[in-house]
Amino acid sequence: MYRCSMERMTDKIKTFSHFGDAGHGGITRYSLSPEAILARNEFRRRMEKIGATIEIDDLANVYATLPGTEPGAKRIVMASHCDSVKNGGNYDGILGVMSAMEVLETVVEQQIPHKHPLTAMIWTNEEGSLYPPAMMCSGIVCYDAMPESIRKGFQYENMMASRSVLNASETFGQALESSGWKGERRYRLSPERYECYFETHIEQGPILEDHLNEIGVVDCVLGMFNDRLKFYGQTVHAGTFPMPKRRDAFHAAAQALCYLHEEIDSLHIPDLVYTTGEVVCHPDVHTCVPDYFDFSIDVRHESAQALERVLEVVEGCQNRQWAGCRCEVVRAWNRDTVYWDKELVGYVREACEELGVTHQSIHSGAGHDAQFAAYMLPTTMIFVQSKDGLSHCEPEYSSPEHCTDGASVMLNAVLKADKR
Amino acid sequence: MYRCSMERMTDKIKTFSHFGDAGHGGITRYSLSPEAILARNEFRRRMEKIGATIEIDDLANVYATLPGTEPGAKRIVMASHCDSVKNGGNYDGILGVMSAMEVLETVVEQQIPHKHPLTAMIWTNEEGSLYPPAMMCSGIVCYDAMPESIRKGFQYENMMASRSVLNASETFGQALESSGWKGERRYRLSPERYECYFETHIEQGPILEDHLNEIGVVDCVLGMFNDRLKFYGQTVHAGTFPMPKRRDAFHAAAQALCYLHEEIDSLHIPDLVYTTGEVVCHPDVHTCVPDYFDFSIDVRHESAQALERVLEVVEGCQNRQWAGCRCEVVRAWNRDTVYWDKELVGYVREACEELGVTHQSIHSGAGHDAQFAAYMLPTTMIFVQSKDGLSHCEPEYSSPEHCTDGASVMLNAVLKADKR
Repeated sequence: MYRCSMERMTDKIKTFSHFGDAGHGGITRYSLSPEAILARNEFRRRMEKIGATIEIDDLANVYATLPGTEPGAKRIVMASHCDSVKNGGNYDGILGVMSAMEVLETVVEQQIPHKHPLTAMIWTNEEGSLYPPAMMCSGIVCYDAMPESIRKGFQYENMMASRSVLNASETFGQALESSGWKGERRYRLSPERYECYFETHIEQGPILEDHLNEIGVVDCVLGMFNDRLKFYGQTVHAGTFPMPKRRDAFHAAAQALCYLHEEIDSLHIPDLVYTTGEVVCHPDVHTCVPDYFDFSIDVRHESAQALERVLEVVEGCQNRQWAGCRCEVVRAWNRDTVYWDKELVGYVREACEELGVTHQSIHSGAGHDAQFAAYMLPTTMIFVQSKDGLSHCEPEYSSPEHCTDGASVMLNAVLKADKR
Repeated sequence: MYRCSMERMTDKIKTFSHFGDAGHGGITRYSLSPEAILARNEFRRRMEKIGATIEIDDLANVYATLPGTEPGAKRIVMASHCDSVKNGGNYDGILGVMSAMEVLETVVEQQIPHKHPLTAMIWTNEEGSLYPPAMMCSGIVCYDAMPESIRKGFQYENMMASRSVLNASETFGQALESSGWKGERRYRLSPERYECYFETHIEQGPILEDHLNEIGVVDCVLGMFNDRLKFYGQTVHAGTFPMPKRRDAFHAAAQALCYLHEEIDSLHIPDLVYTTGEVVCHPDVHTCVPDYFDFSIDVRHESAQALERVLEVVEGCQNRQWAGCRCEVVRAWNRDTVYWDKELVGYVREACEELGVTHQSIHSGAGHDAQFAAYMLPTTMIFVQSKDGLSHCEPEYSSPEHCTDGASVMLNAVLKADKR
């Protein structure tokens, strides 16, 4: 068994936390921003220092590769992203990049033999915070391998035309051109040149911490659907319109939301999660009864059948009256559960056991670039415990011990894949 | 009895509907906008044509006055506003101005004798759509006469500094300066120069239509309070955080909203209206559980005791847990019921009876400039039936017959006030 260096890992965590430091413990580091370029430069500097070869594809995805001993062997890639959400933390995304760097650094320092070339990789624009959608560049790279229903969201021309949420006159394509990081298409991740794919990430939930486990052996990304419930009423004046004649779309939505909680909870589906996070209220004026209200519902579970049962409840809302308002349910998107490669998952578990690292099987509730990579290459993920389950916020935290153990687990799992 | 001209009234309705015509039956005519200036010019042109004297005060309020026969008699004023909300209708506000013009035109045409000077008046910025708050200029003019609790919202310097909701770099004070309609402070409405105040307005509710009455004899503006219910939870990731540990502020707000409807309705307070029209959701992202949600509640009733009972229910929300979230209730503002002058209300009723116009007593649920004028002068209002109770929207409609009868009622009520 090989072990990574906590000293070196701690130094990386500290260094990368400066790039986009927002002044209260976290970072804002949009993809291709000056802050993200600092992080990319640091990645490049450290990887060139250990003799890795740098390649950059036409989407600014960066690949740092150490050669293997077997001529013609395909590469094993360890990837993640270095961009963050607004006022995000120091771990989401960048931990996977730092872990990949740490693996290569350890391989060089300890002169660990390996047949396959080993690649540490940065994905461009995973969060999609400035240029939607999330996982944009893995979506483009894996486009041909993806199911058609998902693929249509990642059409190259549309992605290049994606407008900045801060400055609508700037597109992602323009940001890419002016970044100085646009390389050549032939360097894109592909099954012709790559053997398999690993991604280390923070858990972003409290399950590992609650079970006193350091590492999650991830087996899949949960299937999900994302729908919008829309309620249509009539706007009238707050002071002049009698209550019995009102059709209040906000009241309708509130009734439906409480109903959904009761009905979905009564299905007693273990591990189901559902979230109603986004709302629209119109006209949204305190002296007017709302004539329109909608909210999103995001439902995730491993089992397609479980999702189907929840969908029945959600769609059933259309057949009822809510405070005199009509309800319409509209599909935004959905995905089936994406399972990781069983062999690779086994390597991760064995590595945990051999290293004596506490671990458990876990699903990924969040989406990751790995889920698109999985359509193209044998893929798996490693989760590192998140303090209090918090992520996408400044208090996001994973300890240096856990981060280093995560890298050690990935190193040993990669070496198992290297041997097969 | 005197009667106004439906032909002339119809012509005015048609003409003023052009100023700010938004192309689908209604208007957008923000105060002091080019569209509002067109309406002001038309008012001035028509009033000068019948020999009225134009005065403009330092807030661009416009006064057109016909002299009376009794030397030194104070003026009787008929006022309303010519600005609208975004995509508003052709009646809210401007009907009161057109009715005042029609009264003066009828007085001149029919050579009706009157002791007091008669004034038709336009208030600047009643809606506050571009420069909040609503009823800004009546608030400034009546400042000294208002209760202190209301007064603080209309401090002159603050009003001049009110920023455009469309362009934060422009203030109301600047718009006033550059409008060409800023006159002299000495022309402001005042008890020294004015005897009493009339305002004709559309009902903005369905009560008159439901009771088959043309005209509402308004007796008061309802007392009200406007509070904000705030819910504090915790934001976590939609896919990774187990349901039982969540504290969802939107779910909390929905529960509280349903509770409020049940509890307030069970008080069985006749004629009570309450409205929850405005919401804030944070972070308002479909993949995040909301950590904050708030909504407004606007409650109106004639009786202070009834309002107190509802307030108890609203404030009681703070003592309960809502989906694991804390609730806080914050007062935005409140007002006591403002009663109109009993004598003037009597003149309006008598005028209806003598003209044979169907009518009933009614409260004003909406706020109007008249409610501030009432702190300074004997005041009353006349409501004209609204089709379907709609207002602040393009389908807003009152028939030419009803509009003309409203003007005739005001004319005869004003002549009664003139005689006392």
